[in-house]
Amino acid sequence: MNQMLKAYMANKKAWFEAELPMLFQNAAITPKLKQAMLYSLEAGGKRIRPILLFATLHSLGKAEDNGLSTALGLEMIHTYSLIHDDLPAMDNDRLRRGKPTNHCVFGESTAILAGDGLLTAAFQLIANDPFIDENTRIKLVYLLAKAAGPEGMVGGQQDDLQAEEKKINLNELMSIHKRKTGRLIRFPVEAAAVIAKVDKKKKQTLVLYAEHLGLAFQIGDDILDLTGEEKALGKPVGSDIANHKNTYVSLLGTNGAKEKLEQEVNASLAELRKIGLENGLLSDLASYLLHRTY
Amino acid sequence: MNQMLKAYMANKKAWFEAELPMLFQNAAITPKLKQAMLYSLEAGGKRIRPILLFATLHSLGKAEDNGLSTALGLEMIHTYSLIHDDLPAMDNDRLRRGKPTNHCVFGESTAILAGDGLLTAAFQLIANDPFIDENTRIKLVYLLAKAAGPEGMVGGQQDDLQAEEKKINLNELMSIHKRKTGRLIRFPVEAAAVIAKVDKKKKQTLVLYAEHLGLAFQIGDDILDLTGEEKALGKPVGSDIANHKNTYVSLLGTNGAKEKLEQEVNASLAELRKIGLENGLLSDLASYLLHRTY
Repeated sequence: MNQMLKAYMANKKAWFEAELPMLFQNAAITPKLKQAMLYSLEAGGKRIRPILLFATLHSLGKAEDNGLSTALGLEMIHTYSLIHDDLPAMDNDRLRRGKPTNHCVFGESTAILAGDGLLTAAFQLIANDPFIDENTRIKLVYLLAKAAGPEGMVGGQQDDLQAEEKKINLNELMSIHKRKTGRLIRFPVEAAAVIAKVDKKKKQTLVLYAEHLGLAFQIGDDILDLTGEEKALGKPVGSDIANHKNTYVSLLGTNGAKEKLEQEVNASLAELRKIGLENGLLSDLASYLLHRTY
Repeated sequence: MNQMLKAYMANKKAWFEAELPMLFQNAAITPKLKQAMLYSLEAGGKRIRPILLFATLHSLGKAEDNGLSTALGLEMIHTYSLIHDDLPAMDNDRLRRGKPTNHCVFGESTAILAGDGLLTAAFQLIANDPFIDENTRIKLVYLLAKAAGPEGMVGGQQDDLQAEEKKINLNELMSIHKRKTGRLIRFPVEAAAVIAKVDKKKKQTLVLYAEHLGLAFQIGDDILDLTGEEKALGKPVGSDIANHKNTYVSLLGTNGAKEKLEQEVNASLAELRKIGLENGLLSDLASYLLHRTY
Protein backbone atom coordinates (compact mmCIF):
# COMPACT_ATOMS: atom_id res chain seq x y z
CA MET A 1 0.00 0.00 0.00
CA ASN A 2 1.01 3.55 -0.82
CA GLN A 3 2.76 4.96 2.29
CA MET A 4 0.73 8.16 2.40
CA LEU A 5 -2.56 6.23 2.28
CA LYS A 6 -1.28 3.78 4.87
CA ALA A 7 -0.43 6.60 7.29
CA TYR A 8 -3.75 8.37 6.62
CA MET A 9 -5.75 5.20 7.24
CA ALA A 10 -3.91 4.32 10.46
CA ASN A 11 -4.21 7.88 11.71
CA LYS A 12 -7.93 8.28 10.98
CA LYS A 13 -8.74 4.79 12.26
CA ALA A 14 -7.11 5.62 15.61
CA TRP A 15 -8.85 9.02 15.77
CA PHE A 16 -12.20 7.46 14.95
CA GLU A 17 -11.86 4.54 17.36
CA ALA A 18 -10.94 6.85 20.22
CA GLU A 19 -14.44 8.34 19.88
CA LEU A 20 -16.29 5.02 20.25
CA PRO A 21 -16.06 4.59 24.05
CA MET A 22 -17.44 8.12 24.46
CA LEU A 23 -20.51 7.52 22.30
CA PHE A 24 -23.03 6.64 25.01
CA GLN A 25 -21.23 8.21 27.96
CA ASN A 26 -23.94 10.72 28.81
CA ALA A 27 -26.89 8.55 27.86
CA ALA A 28 -29.02 6.69 30.40
CA ILE A 29 -28.86 3.21 28.85
CA THR A 30 -29.34 -0.03 30.73
CA PRO A 31 -25.82 -1.51 31.26
CA LYS A 32 -26.12 -4.85 29.43
CA LEU A 33 -27.54 -3.19 26.32
CA LYS A 34 -24.82 -0.52 26.29
CA GLN A 35 -22.16 -3.20 26.76
CA ALA A 36 -23.57 -5.29 23.90
CA MET A 37 -23.67 -2.29 21.53
CA LEU A 38 -20.10 -1.27 22.37
CA TYR A 39 -18.81 -4.85 22.18
CA SER A 40 -19.57 -5.06 18.47
CA LEU A 41 -18.75 -1.42 17.72
CA GLU A 42 -15.32 -1.85 19.27
CA ALA A 43 -14.65 -5.28 17.74
CA GLY A 44 -12.31 -3.75 15.18
CA GLY A 45 -12.36 -3.95 11.43
CA LYS A 46 -10.73 -1.66 8.91
CA ARG A 47 -13.22 1.22 9.45
CA ILE A 48 -13.23 1.54 5.67
CA ARG A 49 -16.57 3.42 5.56
CA PRO A 50 -15.58 6.18 8.01
CA ILE A 51 -12.18 6.48 6.31
CA LEU A 52 -13.87 6.88 2.92
CA LEU A 53 -15.94 9.72 4.36
CA PHE A 54 -12.89 11.43 5.87
CA ALA A 55 -10.78 10.92 2.73
CA THR A 56 -13.51 12.39 0.52
CA LEU A 57 -13.90 15.42 2.80
CA HIS A 58 -10.10 15.85 2.79
CA SER A 59 -9.98 15.61 -1.02
CA LEU A 60 -12.69 18.28 -1.23
CA GLY A 61 -10.69 20.61 1.04
CA LYS A 62 -12.97 20.25 4.05
CA ALA A 63 -11.90 19.34 7.60
CA GLU A 64 -12.65 15.77 8.67
CA ASP A 65 -14.30 16.92 11.93
CA ASN A 66 -17.33 17.92 9.90
CA GLY A 67 -17.96 14.26 9.12
CA LEU A 68 -17.27 12.69 12.51
CA SER A 69 -20.87 12.24 13.72
CA THR A 70 -21.96 11.02 10.30
CA ALA A 71 -19.08 8.52 10.21
CA LEU A 72 -19.96 7.29 13.70
CA GLY A 73 -23.62 6.90 12.74
CA LEU A 74 -22.63 5.06 9.57
CA GLU A 75 -20.37 2.65 11.46
CA MET A 76 -23.18 2.06 13.99
CA ILE A 77 -25.46 1.05 11.14
CA HIS A 78 -22.79 -1.14 9.54
CA THR A 79 -22.28 -2.77 12.95
CA TYR A 80 -26.00 -3.36 13.55
CA SER A 81 -26.22 -5.07 10.15
CA LEU A 82 -23.39 -7.45 11.11
CA ILE A 83 -25.04 -8.29 14.47
CA HIS A 84 -28.36 -9.11 12.81
CA ASP A 85 -26.67 -10.97 9.89
CA ASP A 86 -24.86 -13.23 12.35
CA LEU A 87 -28.06 -14.27 14.20
CA PRO A 88 -29.04 -17.96 14.20
CA ALA A 89 -32.07 -17.20 12.00
CA MET A 90 -29.80 -15.47 9.45
CA ASP A 91 -26.23 -16.66 8.71
CA ASN A 92 -25.83 -18.30 12.14
CA ASP A 93 -22.17 -17.26 12.48
CA ARG A 94 -20.34 -17.81 15.74
CA LEU A 95 -17.19 -15.86 14.86
CA ARG A 96 -16.73 -12.37 13.45
CA ARG A 97 -13.27 -10.83 13.11
CA GLY A 98 -11.93 -13.70 15.21
CA LYS A 99 -14.24 -12.92 18.15
CA PRO A 100 -17.48 -14.59 19.30
CA THR A 101 -20.47 -12.91 17.66
CA ASN A 102 -22.79 -10.68 19.68
CA HIS A 103 -25.52 -13.26 20.31
CA CYS A 104 -22.94 -15.84 21.41
CA VAL A 105 -21.78 -13.44 24.13
CA PHE A 106 -24.98 -11.65 25.15
CA GLY A 107 -27.76 -14.00 24.02
CA GLU A 108 -30.04 -13.74 21.03
CA SER A 109 -32.65 -11.34 22.42
CA THR A 110 -30.05 -8.81 23.60
CA ALA A 111 -28.26 -9.09 20.23
CA ILE A 112 -31.48 -8.24 18.38
CA LEU A 113 -32.02 -5.24 20.67
CA ALA A 114 -28.37 -4.14 20.43
CA GLY A 115 -28.80 -4.06 16.64
CA ASP A 116 -32.08 -2.17 16.89
CA GLY A 117 -30.50 0.23 19.37
CA LEU A 118 -27.45 0.99 17.20
CA LEU A 119 -29.62 1.56 14.13
CA THR A 120 -31.90 3.98 15.98
CA ALA A 121 -29.12 5.79 17.85
CA ALA A 122 -27.28 6.42 14.56
CA PHE A 123 -30.06 8.75 13.42
CA GLN A 124 -30.21 10.39 16.85
CA LEU A 125 -26.49 11.17 16.63
CA ILE A 126 -26.57 12.63 13.13
CA ALA A 127 -29.73 14.64 13.82
CA ASN A 128 -27.92 16.21 16.78
CA ASP A 129 -24.56 16.91 15.07
CA PRO A 130 -23.41 20.35 16.26
CA PHE A 131 -20.81 20.73 13.48
CA ILE A 132 -23.17 20.99 10.52
CA ASP A 133 -26.28 22.99 9.69
CA GLU A 134 -29.78 21.55 9.98
CA ASN A 135 -30.49 21.49 6.25
CA THR A 136 -27.39 19.37 5.66
CA ARG A 137 -28.25 17.11 8.60
CA ILE A 138 -31.72 16.32 7.27
CA LYS A 139 -30.21 15.45 3.86
CA LEU A 140 -27.75 13.09 5.57
CA VAL A 141 -30.51 11.39 7.56
CA TYR A 142 -32.53 10.92 4.38
CA LEU A 143 -29.61 9.56 2.34
CA LEU A 144 -28.43 7.22 5.09
CA ALA A 145 -31.93 5.83 5.71
CA LYS A 146 -32.41 5.29 1.97
CA ALA A 147 -29.00 3.59 1.69
CA ALA A 148 -29.53 1.35 4.72
CA GLY A 149 -33.25 0.62 4.41
CA PRO A 150 -35.56 -1.53 2.27
CA GLU A 151 -34.45 0.08 -1.00
CA GLY A 152 -30.81 -0.38 -0.03
CA MET A 153 -28.94 -2.64 2.36
CA VAL A 154 -31.93 -4.38 3.98
CA GLY A 155 -33.44 -5.14 0.56
CA GLY A 156 -30.12 -6.50 -0.70
CA GLN A 157 -29.86 -8.71 2.35
CA GLN A 158 -33.39 -10.04 1.75
CA ASP A 159 -32.53 -10.88 -1.89
CA ASP A 160 -29.27 -12.47 -0.77
CA LEU A 161 -31.16 -14.76 1.64
CA GLN A 162 -33.60 -15.71 -1.10
CA ALA A 163 -30.71 -16.46 -3.49
CA GLU A 164 -29.20 -19.04 -1.12
CA GLU A 165 -29.20 -22.61 -2.41
CA LYS A 166 -30.12 -21.18 -5.81
CA LYS A 167 -27.88 -20.46 -8.81
CA ILE A 168 -28.06 -16.79 -9.86
CA ASN A 169 -26.42 -14.95 -12.74
CA LEU A 170 -23.89 -12.11 -12.72
CA ASN A 171 -26.48 -9.34 -13.09
CA GLU A 172 -28.49 -10.68 -10.17
CA LEU A 173 -25.35 -10.97 -8.05
CA MET A 174 -24.34 -7.40 -8.88
CA SER A 175 -27.85 -6.13 -8.09
CA ILE A 176 -27.68 -7.79 -4.67
CA HIS A 177 -24.21 -6.47 -3.87
CA LYS A 178 -24.93 -2.95 -5.09
CA ARG A 179 -27.52 -2.79 -2.32
CA LYS A 180 -26.28 -5.19 0.37
CA THR A 181 -22.74 -3.82 0.61
CA GLY A 182 -22.52 -1.16 -2.11
CA ARG A 183 -24.93 1.38 -0.64
CA LEU A 184 -22.98 1.77 2.60
CA ILE A 185 -19.75 2.25 0.61
CA ARG A 186 -21.44 4.82 -1.61
CA PHE A 187 -23.02 6.70 1.28
CA PRO A 188 -19.83 8.10 2.91
CA VAL A 189 -18.64 9.51 -0.41
CA GLU A 190 -22.03 11.07 -1.14
CA ALA A 191 -22.32 12.32 2.44
CA ALA A 192 -18.94 14.06 2.20
CA ALA A 193 -20.05 15.70 -1.06
CA VAL A 194 -23.22 16.94 0.69
CA ILE A 195 -21.29 18.22 3.72
CA ALA A 196 -18.78 19.98 1.43
CA LYS A 197 -21.70 21.37 -0.60
CA VAL A 198 -20.13 20.51 -3.98
CA ASP A 199 -22.16 21.07 -7.15
CA LYS A 200 -24.58 18.44 -8.45
CA LYS A 201 -22.36 17.25 -11.31
CA LYS A 202 -19.32 16.74 -9.12
CA LYS A 203 -21.46 14.90 -6.58
CA GLN A 204 -22.81 12.58 -9.27
CA THR A 205 -19.28 11.81 -10.47
CA LEU A 206 -18.20 11.02 -6.90
CA VAL A 207 -21.22 8.73 -6.51
CA LEU A 208 -20.23 6.81 -9.66
CA TYR A 209 -16.68 6.52 -8.31
CA ALA A 210 -18.10 5.08 -5.08
CA GLU A 211 -20.40 2.62 -6.86
CA HIS A 212 -17.48 1.11 -8.78
CA LEU A 213 -15.40 1.13 -5.62
CA GLY A 214 -18.15 -0.73 -3.73
CA LEU A 215 -18.29 -3.50 -6.32
CA ALA A 216 -14.48 -3.72 -6.39
CA PHE A 217 -14.50 -4.02 -2.61
CA GLN A 218 -17.00 -6.90 -2.71
CA ILE A 219 -15.18 -8.73 -5.52
CA GLY A 220 -11.95 -8.35 -3.54
CA ASP A 221 -13.66 -9.86 -0.48
CA ASP A 222 -14.82 -12.83 -2.54
CA ILE A 223 -11.27 -13.41 -3.87
CA LEU A 224 -9.75 -13.04 -0.40
CA ASP A 225 -12.10 -15.69 0.94
CA LEU A 226 -9.97 -18.13 -1.12
CA THR A 227 -6.53 -16.53 -1.19
CA GLY A 228 -6.39 -14.82 2.21
CA GLU A 229 -5.03 -16.09 5.50
CA GLU A 230 -7.40 -17.24 8.22
CA LYS A 231 -5.82 -14.98 10.83
CA ALA A 232 -6.21 -11.85 8.71
CA LEU A 233 -9.72 -12.83 7.57
CA GLY A 234 -10.95 -13.67 11.09
CA LYS A 235 -12.83 -16.66 9.61
CA PRO A 236 -11.89 -19.95 7.90
CA VAL A 237 -10.51 -19.76 4.34
CA GLY A 238 -13.00 -21.00 1.75
CA SER A 239 -16.06 -20.54 3.96
CA ASP A 240 -18.08 -19.07 1.05
CA ILE A 241 -17.61 -22.29 -0.93
CA ALA A 242 -18.40 -24.42 2.11
CA ASN A 243 -21.65 -22.44 2.49
CA HIS A 244 -22.46 -22.69 -1.25
CA LYS A 245 -22.60 -18.91 -1.50
CA ASN A 246 -23.00 -17.13 -4.80
CA THR A 247 -19.80 -15.07 -5.24
CA TYR A 248 -17.92 -13.45 -8.09
CA VAL A 249 -15.42 -16.31 -7.82
CA SER A 250 -18.12 -19.00 -8.05
CA LEU A 251 -19.60 -17.29 -11.13
CA LEU A 252 -16.44 -16.10 -12.93
CA GLY A 253 -13.62 -18.25 -11.54
CA THR A 254 -10.67 -16.71 -9.68
CA ASN A 255 -9.07 -15.21 -12.79
CA GLY A 256 -12.38 -13.91 -14.10
CA ALA A 257 -13.08 -12.30 -10.72
CA LYS A 258 -9.62 -10.68 -10.72
CA GLU A 259 -10.29 -9.24 -14.19
CA LYS A 260 -13.66 -7.90 -13.05
CA LEU A 261 -12.01 -6.36 -9.98
CA GLU A 262 -9.48 -4.57 -12.21
CA GLN A 263 -12.28 -3.30 -14.48
CA GLU A 264 -14.21 -1.83 -11.54
CA VAL A 265 -11.10 -0.18 -10.07
CA ASN A 266 -10.25 1.33 -13.47
CA ALA A 267 -13.81 2.57 -13.91
CA SER A 268 -13.66 4.24 -10.48
CA LEU A 269 -10.34 5.92 -11.38
CA ALA A 270 -11.83 7.17 -14.66
CA GLU A 271 -14.53 9.02 -12.69
CA LEU A 272 -11.92 10.68 -10.47
CA ARG A 273 -10.04 11.93 -13.55
CA LYS A 274 -13.17 13.83 -14.65
CA ILE A 275 -12.99 16.00 -11.54
CA GLY A 276 -9.22 16.27 -11.22
CA LEU A 277 -8.92 13.91 -8.25
CA GLU A 278 -6.83 11.25 -10.00
CA ASN A 279 -3.85 11.81 -7.70
CA GLY A 280 -4.76 11.61 -4.06
CA LEU A 281 -6.34 9.62 -1.29
CA LEU A 282 -9.42 8.54 -3.25
CA SER A 283 -7.44 7.11 -6.16
CA ASP A 284 -4.98 5.51 -3.75
CA LEU A 285 -7.91 3.86 -1.95
CA ALA A 286 -9.19 2.43 -5.25
CA SER A 287 -5.76 1.17 -6.29
CA TYR A 288 -5.22 -0.41 -2.89
CA LEU A 289 -8.25 -2.67 -3.49
CA LEU A 290 -6.35 -4.28 -6.40
CA HIS A 291 -3.63 -5.66 -4.18
CA ARG A 292 -4.97 -5.89 -0.66
CA THR A 293 -4.27 -9.03 1.30
CA TYR A 294 -6.93 -8.62 3.99
CA MET B 1 -66.94 6.63 24.79
CA ASN B 2 -67.79 10.28 24.15
CA GLN B 3 -69.49 10.46 20.72
CA MET B 4 -67.31 13.27 19.39
CA LEU B 5 -64.12 11.38 20.31
CA LYS B 6 -65.54 8.17 18.84
CA ALA B 7 -66.27 9.87 15.51
CA TYR B 8 -62.88 11.61 15.48
CA MET B 9 -61.02 8.36 16.16
CA ALA B 10 -62.92 6.38 13.51
CA ASN B 11 -62.48 9.16 10.98
CA LYS B 12 -58.74 9.64 11.54
CA LYS B 13 -58.09 5.90 11.71
CA ALA B 14 -59.70 5.45 8.29
CA TRP B 15 -57.82 8.43 6.84
CA PHE B 16 -54.53 7.16 8.24
CA GLU B 17 -55.02 3.55 7.15
CA ALA B 18 -55.86 4.62 3.60
CA GLU B 19 -52.30 5.96 3.38
CA LEU B 20 -50.61 2.68 4.34
CA PRO B 21 -50.89 0.82 0.99
CA MET B 22 -49.35 3.86 -0.74
CA LEU B 23 -46.30 4.00 1.51
CA PHE B 24 -43.84 2.01 -0.62
CA GLN B 25 -45.59 2.42 -3.95
CA ASN B 26 -42.78 4.28 -5.70
CA ALA B 27 -39.93 2.49 -3.94
CA ALA B 28 -37.91 -0.31 -5.54
CA ILE B 29 -38.23 -2.90 -2.77
CA THR B 30 -37.91 -6.63 -3.24
CA PRO B 31 -41.50 -8.04 -3.20
CA LYS B 32 -41.35 -10.43 -0.24
CA LEU B 33 -39.83 -7.75 2.02
CA LYS B 34 -42.42 -5.16 0.99
CA GLN B 35 -45.20 -7.68 1.56
CA ALA B 36 -43.87 -8.57 5.02
CA MET B 37 -43.60 -4.91 6.04
CA LEU B 38 -47.13 -4.11 4.84
CA TYR B 39 -48.59 -7.29 6.39
CA SER B 40 -47.80 -6.07 9.90
CA LEU B 41 -48.43 -2.39 9.19
CA GLU B 42 -51.90 -3.22 7.88
CA ALA B 43 -52.72 -5.76 10.60
CA GLY B 44 -54.97 -3.27 12.36
CA GLY B 45 -54.88 -1.99 15.90
CA LYS B 46 -56.38 1.16 17.34
CA ARG B 47 -53.76 3.48 15.76
CA ILE B 48 -53.70 5.25 19.11
CA ARG B 49 -50.27 6.87 18.51
CA PRO B 50 -51.16 8.50 15.17
CA ILE B 51 -54.53 9.58 16.59
CA LEU B 52 -52.80 11.20 19.58
CA LEU B 53 -50.60 13.17 17.18
CA PHE B 54 -53.58 14.29 15.09
CA ALA B 55 -55.69 15.13 18.17
CA THR B 56 -52.87 17.21 19.67
CA LEU B 57 -52.36 19.12 16.41
CA HIS B 58 -56.12 19.68 16.21
CA SER B 59 -56.23 20.93 19.81
CA LEU B 60 -53.40 23.35 19.00
CA GLY B 61 -55.31 24.72 15.99
CA LYS B 62 -53.06 23.13 13.37
CA ALA B 63 -54.21 20.97 10.43
CA GLU B 64 -53.63 17.23 10.84
CA ASP B 65 -51.96 16.94 7.40
CA ASN B 66 -48.86 18.50 8.93
CA GLY B 67 -48.41 15.41 11.06
CA LEU B 68 -49.20 12.69 8.53
CA SER B 69 -45.64 11.64 7.63
CA THR B 70 -44.58 11.78 11.27
CA ALA B 71 -47.57 9.66 12.28
CA LEU B 72 -46.79 7.12 9.55
CA GLY B 73 -43.13 6.96 10.61
CA LEU B 74 -44.18 6.54 14.24
CA GLU B 75 -46.58 3.70 13.40
CA MET B 76 -43.83 2.04 11.31
CA ILE B 77 -41.56 2.11 14.37
CA HIS B 78 -44.32 0.84 16.66
CA THR B 79 -44.94 -1.97 14.14
CA TYR B 80 -41.26 -2.92 13.85
CA SER B 81 -41.09 -3.19 17.64
CA LEU B 82 -44.04 -5.62 17.65
CA ILE B 83 -42.46 -7.76 14.90
CA HIS B 84 -39.17 -8.04 16.78
CA ASP B 85 -40.91 -8.54 20.18
CA ASP B 86 -42.85 -11.49 18.77
CA LEU B 87 -39.72 -13.31 17.48
CA PRO B 88 -38.92 -16.77 18.92
CA ALA B 89 -35.83 -15.35 20.68
CA MET B 90 -37.98 -12.66 22.34
CA ASP B 91 -41.61 -13.30 23.44
CA ASN B 92 -42.12 -16.12 20.92
CA ASP B 93 -45.71 -15.12 20.15
CA ARG B 94 -47.62 -16.80 17.35
CA LEU B 95 -50.67 -14.53 17.38
CA ARG B 96 -50.95 -10.73 17.31
CA ARG B 97 -54.32 -9.03 17.00
CA GLY B 98 -55.79 -12.41 16.18
CA LYS B 99 -53.50 -12.95 13.17
CA PRO B 100 -50.36 -15.09 12.79
CA THR B 101 -47.26 -13.05 13.69
CA ASN B 102 -44.86 -11.88 11.00
CA HIS B 103 -42.27 -14.63 11.45
CA CYS B 104 -44.98 -17.32 11.38
CA VAL B 105 -46.05 -16.09 7.94
CA PHE B 106 -42.77 -15.00 6.34
CA GLY B 107 -40.10 -16.84 8.32
CA GLU B 108 -37.78 -15.56 10.99
CA SER B 109 -35.08 -14.01 8.82
CA THR B 110 -37.57 -12.01 6.73
CA ALA B 111 -39.33 -10.87 9.93
CA ILE B 112 -36.06 -9.54 11.34
CA LEU B 113 -35.40 -7.69 8.07
CA ALA B 114 -38.98 -6.39 7.83
CA GLY B 115 -38.52 -4.89 11.29
CA ASP B 116 -35.16 -3.39 10.38
CA GLY B 117 -36.65 -2.07 7.15
CA LEU B 118 -39.64 -0.40 8.82
CA LEU B 119 -37.42 1.23 11.46
CA THR B 120 -35.05 2.63 8.84
CA ALA B 121 -37.75 3.71 6.38
CA ALA B 122 -39.52 5.64 9.17
CA PHE B 123 -36.63 8.10 9.35
CA GLN B 124 -36.43 8.29 5.56
CA LEU B 125 -40.10 9.26 5.41
CA ILE B 126 -39.92 11.95 8.08
CA ALA B 127 -36.67 13.40 6.70
CA ASN B 128 -38.42 13.77 3.35
CA ASP B 129 -41.74 15.24 4.62
CA PRO B 130 -42.74 18.00 2.19
CA PHE B 131 -45.29 19.56 4.58
CA ILE B 132 -42.90 20.83 7.23
CA ASP B 133 -39.69 22.84 7.26
CA GLU B 134 -36.26 21.22 7.57
CA ASN B 135 -35.52 22.58 11.05
CA THR B 136 -38.71 20.99 12.38
CA ARG B 137 -37.99 17.75 10.55
CA ILE B 138 -34.54 17.37 12.12
CA LYS B 139 -36.06 17.96 15.58
CA LEU B 140 -38.65 15.25 14.90
CA VAL B 141 -36.00 12.76 13.74
CA TYR B 142 -33.97 13.46 16.87
CA LEU B 143 -36.94 13.15 19.24
CA LEU B 144 -38.25 9.98 17.60
CA ALA B 145 -34.82 8.29 17.60
CA LYS B 146 -34.34 9.21 21.26
CA ALA B 147 -37.82 7.92 22.13
CA ALA B 148 -37.43 4.66 20.22
CA GLY B 149 -33.73 3.93 20.82
CA PRO B 150 -31.50 2.66 23.64
CA GLU B 151 -32.51 5.47 26.02
CA GLY B 152 -36.17 4.85 25.27
CA MET B 153 -38.18 1.92 23.94
CA VAL B 154 -35.29 -0.45 23.13
CA GLY B 155 -33.77 0.10 26.59
CA GLY B 156 -37.14 -0.51 28.25
CA GLN B 157 -37.54 -3.71 26.28
CA GLN B 158 -34.08 -4.88 27.39
CA ASP B 159 -34.93 -4.21 31.06
CA ASP B 160 -38.27 -5.94 30.61
CA LEU B 161 -36.52 -9.07 29.30
CA GLN B 162 -34.10 -9.00 32.23
CA ALA B 163 -37.01 -8.61 34.68
CA GLU B 164 -38.67 -11.82 33.48
CA GLU B 165 -38.84 -14.62 36.05
CA LYS B 166 -37.81 -12.02 38.65
CA LYS B 167 -39.97 -10.10 41.12
CA ILE B 168 -39.60 -6.32 40.66
CA ASN B 169 -41.14 -3.44 42.60
CA LEU B 170 -43.54 -0.72 41.46
CA ASN B 171 -40.80 1.85 40.74
CA GLU B 172 -38.88 -0.61 38.58
CA LEU B 173 -42.07 -1.55 36.72
CA MET B 174 -42.88 2.11 36.09
CA SER B 175 -39.32 2.81 34.91
CA ILE B 176 -39.61 -0.05 32.39
CA HIS B 177 -43.03 1.03 31.12
CA LYS B 178 -42.11 4.71 30.88
CA ARG B 179 -39.54 3.65 28.28
CA LYS B 180 -40.93 0.47 26.73
CA THR B 181 -44.39 1.80 25.95
CA GLY B 182 -44.47 5.32 27.41
CA ARG B 183 -41.95 6.98 25.11
CA LEU B 184 -43.92 6.17 21.94
CA ILE B 185 -47.09 7.55 23.58
CA ARG B 186 -45.28 10.71 24.65
CA PHE B 187 -43.63 11.23 21.25
CA PRO B 188 -46.78 12.02 19.18
CA VAL B 189 -47.87 14.68 21.69
CA GLU B 190 -44.40 16.23 21.81
CA ALA B 191 -44.09 16.00 18.01
CA ALA B 192 -47.38 17.84 17.53
CA ALA B 193 -46.17 20.57 19.92
CA VAL B 194 -42.95 20.88 17.86
CA ILE B 195 -44.84 20.98 14.55
CA ALA B 196 -47.26 23.60 15.95
CA LYS B 197 -44.25 25.53 17.32
CA VAL B 198 -45.83 26.12 20.74
CA ASP B 199 -43.73 27.76 23.48
CA LYS B 200 -41.44 25.72 25.72
CA LYS B 201 -43.68 25.85 28.79
CA LYS B 202 -46.77 24.67 26.94
CA LYS B 203 -44.75 21.90 25.32
CA GLN B 204 -43.48 20.73 28.72
CA THR B 205 -47.03 20.65 30.08
CA LEU B 206 -48.18 18.60 27.09
CA VAL B 207 -45.27 16.21 27.64
CA LEU B 208 -46.34 15.70 31.28
CA TYR B 209 -49.91 15.07 30.11
CA ALA B 210 -48.57 12.43 27.71
CA GLU B 211 -46.39 10.74 30.33
CA HIS B 212 -49.35 10.23 32.66
CA LEU B 213 -51.44 9.11 29.69
CA GLY B 214 -48.80 6.56 28.71
CA LEU B 215 -48.78 5.01 32.17
CA ALA B 216 -52.60 5.01 32.26
CA PHE B 217 -52.61 3.26 28.90
CA GLN B 218 -50.26 0.53 30.14
CA ILE B 219 -52.14 0.03 33.42
CA GLY B 220 -55.36 -0.24 31.41
CA ASP B 221 -53.74 -2.90 29.19
CA ASP B 222 -52.72 -4.89 32.25
CA ILE B 223 -56.27 -4.74 33.66
CA LEU B 224 -57.81 -5.67 30.30
CA ASP B 225 -55.60 -8.74 30.13
CA LEU B 226 -57.81 -10.08 32.96
CA THR B 227 -61.17 -8.42 32.37
CA GLY B 228 -61.27 -8.16 28.57
CA GLU B 229 -62.70 -10.55 26.00
CA GLU B 230 -60.43 -12.76 23.96
CA LYS B 231 -61.95 -11.61 20.67
CA ALA B 232 -61.38 -7.92 21.43
CA LEU B 233 -57.90 -8.54 22.88
CA GLY B 234 -56.74 -10.73 19.97
CA LYS B 235 -54.99 -12.98 22.51
CA PRO B 236 -56.06 -15.34 25.34
CA VAL B 237 -57.40 -13.72 28.54
CA GLY B 238 -54.94 -13.96 31.43
CA SER B 239 -51.87 -14.56 29.24
CA ASP B 240 -49.78 -12.17 31.38
CA ILE B 241 -50.38 -14.34 34.45
CA ALA B 242 -49.72 -17.53 32.46
CA ASN B 243 -46.38 -16.00 31.39
CA HIS B 244 -45.55 -14.83 34.96
CA LYS B 245 -45.25 -11.24 33.71
CA ASN B 246 -44.73 -8.35 36.08
CA THR B 247 -47.82 -6.14 35.65
CA TYR B 248 -49.61 -3.46 37.64
CA VAL B 249 -52.23 -6.07 38.47
CA SER B 250 -49.66 -8.59 39.74
CA LEU B 251 -48.08 -5.90 41.95
CA LEU B 252 -51.17 -3.96 43.11
CA GLY B 253 -54.07 -6.35 42.63
CA THR B 254 -56.99 -5.53 40.30
CA ASN B 255 -58.48 -2.86 42.57
CA GLY B 256 -55.09 -1.31 43.30
CA ALA B 257 -54.35 -1.16 39.57
CA LYS B 258 -57.75 0.49 38.92
CA GLU B 259 -56.97 3.12 41.56
CA LYS B 260 -53.55 3.77 40.03
CA LEU B 261 -55.16 4.07 36.58
CA GLU B 262 -57.57 6.69 37.93
CA GLN B 263 -54.69 8.61 39.56
CA GLU B 264 -52.74 8.74 36.31
CA VAL B 265 -55.78 9.83 34.28
CA ASN B 266 -56.53 12.57 36.82
CA ALA B 267 -52.91 13.73 36.77
CA SER B 268 -53.01 13.95 32.97
CA LEU B 269 -56.24 15.99 33.12
CA ALA B 270 -54.66 18.33 35.67
CA GLU B 271 -51.89 19.16 33.17
CA LEU B 272 -54.45 19.95 30.45
CA ARG B 273 -56.23 22.40 32.80
CA LYS B 274 -53.00 24.40 33.11
CA ILE B 275 -53.11 25.22 29.39
CA GLY B 276 -56.87 25.53 28.95
CA LEU B 277 -57.30 22.22 27.13
CA GLU B 278 -59.51 20.53 29.73
CA ASN B 279 -62.48 20.31 27.37
CA GLY B 280 -61.62 18.66 24.10
CA LEU B 281 -60.14 15.68 22.32
CA LEU B 282 -57.11 15.32 24.59
CA SER B 283 -59.13 15.22 27.80
CA ASP B 284 -61.70 12.92 26.18
CA LEU B 285 -58.85 10.59 25.19
CA ALA B 286 -57.60 10.47 28.78
CA SER B 287 -61.09 9.88 30.21
CA TYR B 288 -61.74 7.14 27.67
CA LEU B 289 -58.81 5.15 29.14
CA LEU B 290 -60.75 4.87 32.41
CA HIS B 291 -63.55 2.86 30.89
CA ARG B 292 -62.26 1.23 27.74
CA THR B 293 -63.12 -2.39 27.13
CA TYR B 294 -60.45 -3.17 24.51
